[in-house]
Amino acid sequence: MSTQVQALYDFTGEPGTTEMSITCGEILTLINTEIGEGWWEGRNSKGETGLFPAAYVRKLAPEESELTKAAPAAPRYDQAADDWGDQQYSAGDNNYQRGTSHDDGWDDDWDDDTYSEIGPAQQSKTHHNQQAPLAPLPGMPINDYNQHIDETTSNFGSTVGTVRKSKFAPSSKVSGESYLLGTLNVEVPETDKVYIIQDEEGYIWSPLSQPYSVTVASPKKESKFKGIKSFIAYQLTPSFNNIQVSRRYKHFDWLHERLQEKFTLIPIPPLPDKQISGRYDEQLIERRRVQLQEFVDWMCRHPVLSKSEVWQHFLTCTDEKRWKAGKRQAERDNLLGLNYCISLVVPEKALLQSQVDHITDQCGTFVSSMDTSVKSVSNMCVAQTKRFQGPYKTDCQKVGEAFYNLGNALSLDEGTIVSTSKLTSAIKQTGGAYIEIGRMYDEQPKYDWEPLGDKFHLYKGIVGSFPDVLGNHKAAVQKKRECERLTAEHKMEIAQLNEVLRRTDVISYALLAEINHFKAERTADLKATMQKFLRQQITFYKKVVDKLEVTLRQYDE
Amino acid sequence: MSTQVQALYDFTGEPGTTEMSITCGEILTLINTEIGEGWWEGRNSKGETGLFPAAYVRKLAPEESELTKAAPAAPRYDQAADDWGDQQYSAGDNNYQRGTSHDDGWDDDWDDDTYSEIGPAQQSKTHHNQQAPLAPLPGMPINDYNQHIDETTSNFGSTVGTVRKSKFAPSSKVSGESYLLGTLNVEVPETDKVYIIQDEEGYIWSPLSQPYSVTVASPKKESKFKGIKSFIAYQLTPSFNNIQVSRRYKHFDWLHERLQEKFTLIPIPPLPDKQISGRYDEQLIERRRVQLQEFVDWMCRHPVLSKSEVWQHFLTCTDEKRWKAGKRQAERDNLLGLNYCISLVVPEKALLQSQVDHITDQCGTFVSSMDTSVKSVSNMCVAQTKRFQGPYKTDCQKVGEAFYNLGNALSLDEGTIVSTSKLTSAIKQTGGAYIEIGRMYDEQPKYDWEPLGDKFHLYKGIVGSFPDVLGNHKAAVQKKRECERLTAEHKMEIAQLNEVLRRTDVISYALLAEINHFKAERTADLKATMQKFLRQQITFYKKVVDKLEVTLRQYDE
Repeated sequence: MSTQVQALYDFTGEPGTTEMSITCGEILTLINTEIGEGWWEGRNSKGETGLFPAAYVRKLAPEESELTKAAPAAPRYDQAADDWGDQQYSAGDNNYQRGTSHDDGWDDDWDDDTYSEIGPAQQSKTHHNQQAPLAPLPGMPINDYNQHIDETTSNFGSTVGTVRKSKFAPSSKVSGESYLLGTLNVEVPETDKVYIIQDEEGYIWSPLSQPYSVTVASPKKESKFKGIKSFIAYQLTPSFNNIQVSRRYKHFDWLHERLQEKFTLIPIPPLPDKQISGRYDEQLIERRRVQLQEFVDWMCRHPVLSKSEVWQHFLTCTDEKRWKAGKRQAERDNLLGLNYCISLVVPEKALLQSQVDHITDQCGTFVSSMDTSVKSVSNMCVAQTKRFQGPYKTDCQKVGEAFYNLGNALSLDEGTIVSTSKLTSAIKQTGGAYIEIGRMYDEQPKYDWEPLGDKFHLYKGIVGSFPDVLGNHKAAVQKKRECERLTAEHKMEIAQLNEVLRRTDVISYALLAEINHFKAERTADLKATMQKFLRQQITFYKKVVDKLEVTLRQYDE
Repeated sequence: MSTQVQALYDFTGEPGTTEMSITCGEILTLINTEIGEGWWEGRNSKGETGLFPAAYVRKLAPEESELTKAAPAAPRYDQAADDWGDQQYSAGDNNYQRGTSHDDGWDDDWDDDTYSEIGPAQQSKTHHNQQAPLAPLPGMPINDYNQHIDETTSNFGSTVGTVRKSKFAPSSKVSGESYLLGTLNVEVPETDKVYIIQDEEGYIWSPLSQPYSVTVASPKKESKFKGIKSFIAYQLTPSFNNIQVSRRYKHFDWLHERLQEKFTLIPIPPLPDKQISGRYDEQLIERRRVQLQEFVDWMCRHPVLSKSEVWQHFLTCTDEKRWKAGKRQAERDNLLGLNYCISLVVPEKALLQSQVDHITDQCGTFVSSMDTSVKSVSNMCVAQTKRFQGPYKTDCQKVGEAFYNLGNALSLDEGTIVSTSKLTSAIKQTGGAYIEIGRMYDEQPKYDWEPLGDKFHLYKGIVGSFPDVLGNHKAAVQKKRECERLTAEHKMEIAQLNEVLRRTDVISYALLAEINHFKAERTADLKATMQKFLRQQITFYKKVVDKLEVTLRQYDE
């Protein structure tokens, strides 16, 4: 039996060359892997042969080929729901994890960076590594390809920061190209459609009709295998059903990868940093909880993300079997990257490219400057926390000890003078007050600097993702221009070009809506954040004043 | 003509040995300087010969011998007043500066540590160096002497700290011994008598009948020799006459040496440290002014010091000629050290030695502990000043800059959303508020930490002087015990011993009064100091709260 491969992503071959278009999920028979420079040759089910990027397909194991053949090459979107309960893909069938490096177990510790996978999962990991190279643009010699990518992204590359990159997703610059080129043949049911509307601020995502919230409750240690393995689980309770689900960091991590893969025009809020500072385990876990709450809040408030299937699955699934099935279902989602835009319903009006360019350029400039200042605030919060808990505390306590010892020395000479005794006691109390103020400095960051830092951790992630988002949009615009050129050269029909233009507009509408969403969100959010922060700072300094006023009164009594 | 020497201090020779008693001011003819181990041999005016410590006399220049012979060996106290105008000791006659290393000029700069003296003054400096060794106790082999001193003072030696020591005064452990032994034949006029009375707190200096204060006004630069030399002069205005006098640091320094020489049972408040910290000249000079004001305040409030002749001269003399005459007069004062006690009038009641010992022991313990804590508060004030003006300021400004830059970044994306613009402006103002708070930290120490430090500089000096004061008293008690032994050995008359006991009581009364004065002073003073300090701290943190509240309101408007 000849080797079969499955297309992992859409790829459109340059017409009039030896390249062949492939569609995500399509099974091909491998003919030649010795083409070189990342290309393989294969034959599709129609008997056509051609070249495609090796990184865009995965080899199928013999037993897998049989199963996969049964699955449609490009499954209809509405069929996906049925697959959630599909017994074909039940436990142990790890080969179906497309690209995730996590196993299904619940036993990894938070800090476990090396995932303990065996057998098929290992194999799948190897595949991911091969998928790292990006696809060449149509008609471009593959040698120029990497250089081209560098030019396209160089404006943004430096500002990406600490955003978590999916380990296996290809650059979405080409992900979902089949949508743009009209080769994606999917019907989106009305309930899944996402509307972009115009209000006085511009184009926006149609607001959520049923907003909800999710609380991330104080994490608890859970154990498995009769206590041999223990781990931290966070309790999530959505407001719409009030049913608590238990999720570990690795589940968040998996979710995050799915979201990044699917929504390439929407910055996904970041998960907590693994290297969060904290002096105690409880503190560390609580900081992570707060940062997870920030992640969850942003998700809930986002009109698109909050309705996404994988997120809903994550929020509501309580059954392990259904969890695994839904997990695999999500991993098989074909509406990734630009392809997701097929779900969008946008205003009729055609967009003026120059206006779109102006907005995206301005956004790029803004995001670059914002990135610097958001990082600076974030670092400042870490530094202030250290200062409050380190030198500021210590300094206060030194002041307190100096006064306290002075009181002690004076008490050695306590005679019959009553006022001396009162003075001594007042000076000792002054010492005590400063020692107490030192303790307040130690406690304070969790009320102001740490929450502020957690908020800016979120913004660091969002802002850091924007260059990629802009890059993804830019790649689509580039694609559109290619089509315009092809049409000018009479290699593409005008009707087809018009479709491309319309779909590029859909992509641009999505970006504009997201830019506006980010603006509106941060305006409300930063206002509330700064107010909360300042109130906490005021409370702190008022408490210092109170402490000092109490001690001052000791001298009068 | 044979070499003549003048006794600088009283020395009592051990009866039955070759030692000879000498009295301060007495002229002796030198017979032999080759005795060794610090002893010289001489003949007094009665023709008696014997040994005395070489350090206790000074050689007279030939022309000086004539003058000095005319002066009484132990001038009566009331004659001293006449000498203030004595033309015999007018300008240029520098040989009469007993022990001071300052010239009469007004041209030394504050920081001039090397005094520019020529001719006779240089000579007199050499003399001082010879006066460094202390006198042996009577009957003690001179070899054991230094060791003995070490034992006597070891309890206190370590706590003396940074107190200014007179460069030339002998240890007052023996200074003024002639009073104790009844060989001081001086009549003190009633107006100069100082009373010690008993109140509910114990024995105290009779309170001042006419309390006064002296302001040390903002110093100004003055110049001399047509502007070639410039110096800082402080303007002192006593409340009792409202006549301003101008004094330089070197005059304070001279005064301080006179006071230390004369009042060996009273700690003299310290002058400013030469190495006061200050970033600008003006700041430095202002700090010195404050510390001089502390010195002056302590002097004014002291019932004995505030009435002393040399202090009154310092406060009131406006004429340069009279200044020089009074200066020399003060330097010739014979009622130094214990001899000063001849001016005291104390209760009739004999003191119980065991009670006195108890009080002085307790005072010793207290002073030792107080010394440590006063130094610690003093160092803490310096450290806090540095922290406020250094890291605290910088940290606040970093916080402010982070917020300000965030506001700047946000303003790059100002659209039509009015609330964004308000938010941006509020965030920038928050940045400004923290930068301003940084400035407040920089300014603050001059209102709290520096004045507190100046006050504790004073206490450091006073407390640091107490071990010497206690040592001087202890030496007198020791002397008394010697006399008791002599009486037991029938080498001293009981009547004479009773006189010694009575005079030792006077000395003890003086110490007890001084201990009580210090206690009462510091009780009132520390209370006011701490209240002032705390009020300033409260004002500061209230200002921080105000700043933050103003900026918080920007978010609501």
